[in-house]
Amino acid sequence: MAVYTHLGAEQLAELVAAYDVGELVSAKGIAEGISNSNWLIETSGADGTGARFILTMYERRIDTGDLPFFLGLLDHLSAKGCPVPSTIHDCAGSAFRVLDGKTVALIEFLPGVSPTRPTAQQAQAVGAALAQVHLAAADFPLTRANTLDAEANARILEDCGEDRLAQIDPALPAALQRARDLAAHLPSDLPASIIHSDLFPDNVLMRGSTVSGMIDFYFACSDAMAYDLAVTHAAWSFDKSGSCYDAAIGRALIDGYQSVRPLDAAERNALPILAQGACLRFVASRAEDWLDTPGDAHVTRKDPMDFVRRWDFYDENGQQVFA
Amino acid sequence: MAVYTHLGAEQLAELVAAYDVGELVSAKGIAEGISNSNWLIETSGADGTGARFILTMYERRIDTGDLPFFLGLLDHLSAKGCPVPSTIHDCAGSAFRVLDGKTVALIEFLPGVSPTRPTAQQAQAVGAALAQVHLAAADFPLTRANTLDAEANARILEDCGEDRLAQIDPALPAALQRARDLAAHLPSDLPASIIHSDLFPDNVLMRGSTVSGMIDFYFACSDAMAYDLAVTHAAWSFDKSGSCYDAAIGRALIDGYQSVRPLDAAERNALPILAQGACLRFVASRAEDWLDTPGDAHVTRKDPMDFVRRWDFYDENGQQVFA
Repeated sequence: MAVYTHLGAEQLAELVAAYDVGELVSAKGIAEGISNSNWLIETSGADGTGARFILTMYERRIDTGDLPFFLGLLDHLSAKGCPVPSTIHDCAGSAFRVLDGKTVALIEFLPGVSPTRPTAQQAQAVGAALAQVHLAAADFPLTRANTLDAEANARILEDCGEDRLAQIDPALPAALQRARDLAAHLPSDLPASIIHSDLFPDNVLMRGSTVSGMIDFYFACSDAMAYDLAVTHAAWSFDKSGSCYDAAIGRALIDGYQSVRPLDAAERNALPILAQGACLRFVASRAEDWLDTPGDAHVTRKDPMDFVRRWDFYDENGQQVFA
Repeated sequence: MAVYTHLGAEQLAELVAAYDVGELVSAKGIAEGISNSNWLIETSGADGTGARFILTMYERRIDTGDLPFFLGLLDHLSAKGCPVPSTIHDCAGSAFRVLDGKTVALIEFLPGVSPTRPTAQQAQAVGAALAQVHLAAADFPLTRANTLDAEANARILEDCGEDRLAQIDPALPAALQRARDLAAHLPSDLPASIIHSDLFPDNVLMRGSTVSGMIDFYFACSDAMAYDLAVTHAAWSFDKSGSCYDAAIGRALIDGYQSVRPLDAAERNALPILAQGACLRFVASRAEDWLDTPGDAHVTRKDPMDFVRRWDFYDENGQQVFA
């Protein structure tokens, strides 16, 4: 949650002038996104009736070589009616520009707020929206490998090292061997499409029980659709610490998904292990971030153990949960 | 620049329901304000046509006992046509509420962007708007002592101590004696009103050369109007480091002010020393903040020397600048 770069009003006005969106009216740096800076921009609009956008500046973690994939995907999904913001192209047709040496994109603003205590009805809608994205993305012409698959995540934990993992939590080093076992057993032949792969409540905007926006596709990649459902299940169906599973939410999410795209038998069978793979992913990234972040930095570190607890849960109860 | 508190969508929706502003549509934490957290809130509006607000949560530094003064002042100035946001009162008529144990206020959203390289025309408009505020505030019924007058600022520097000041910059301890001298010589009988006392470009929203908003009145207090003009002069007329004075900006600011409220002879004569008092104020607060902020915190510390340089400038050139 930060704005890493100061953009002056004059720079912003000049940037806005490169698009057919009218003149700059207002700009507020917003506290969203961890790998980029974002501004909520208001302009007079191409027709003078006002328009709003999110201006994103890519700061780190994102390879700008991937932007044609990420931004093209937004346009593709949006054109197919998914609740996904489209990219605004500049007067020369480009989906991104360079400002102050950094790459920026102007993206459609979507209304809605992210639920922090989702209802089953909301989870049902999110499941359905995720399936809609999977179906709509099937004919997207670009691909992007999942750079955070189970093997990569096992390697991240290995690079952290047992000693440093133990400093975070004495129970964390046990995840190392579990990660290797998991990587060796995850199925690789499930139906694939482009997946969001990070659909936490933060990345969903809702109005009541309707999904008004799915955002932050910067982990999107080509992978198994059921894995994306498993990620979303792990992200939505527990309290923050992962100690308490909410069966009504988990069930509604899967029902919502299947109302749009029924899972096949192989996918259903794979969900317990895919959910463990999803947990591994966040254990690995949180452990890495934890060790990269000084303890006294004014940044809240996310505890990897929150996802070790989910992992344990899926390990013990996966068969029943996804039956 | 931060949002210190996480507010859930459900908490925000419940808060919004206490006001006659329709339903919550969108909420974004914005990276503004150093003593509070702010959200840009969109609602469906009392009449269903949409409305926007700034939700401010008072985190620290602000004594909530002062809120009737600060928020009442906004309403007073706004009602008199100053470009100042009004406070939205809840359905029970209250200007502020308590949410999650913290005091919050819903404030009118004003369009505009803060200039980072102001033009003389913009400085002229800002001077005029400041004078307008001084005149409009004259009959505001509440008062608030200036807790950051020259004596208080000299004390802040003394509390920092020579050794620690020298750690920031070897030239900084010299400000101590200068501060005592200044505090003894500042005039105390100049025409007074309520002053903003922190009108940096960050706190002014503009559309082209028009002031569309003056914000962040949380240092407002009862004091000499010419001192406020001097603060604004020091805040607007230099490059960031204070090494380079822009005479066209400084002149336009004073001309703009006098186009609405001409200064009397005593005020004109006092401007050189008032401007030094303004510099002292920011030298003191920046030195204090610097020493309070760990060097490795992910927060940019503002260099007090930027205002020592301005102080030197006014000391040497004040008579000509304000002639």
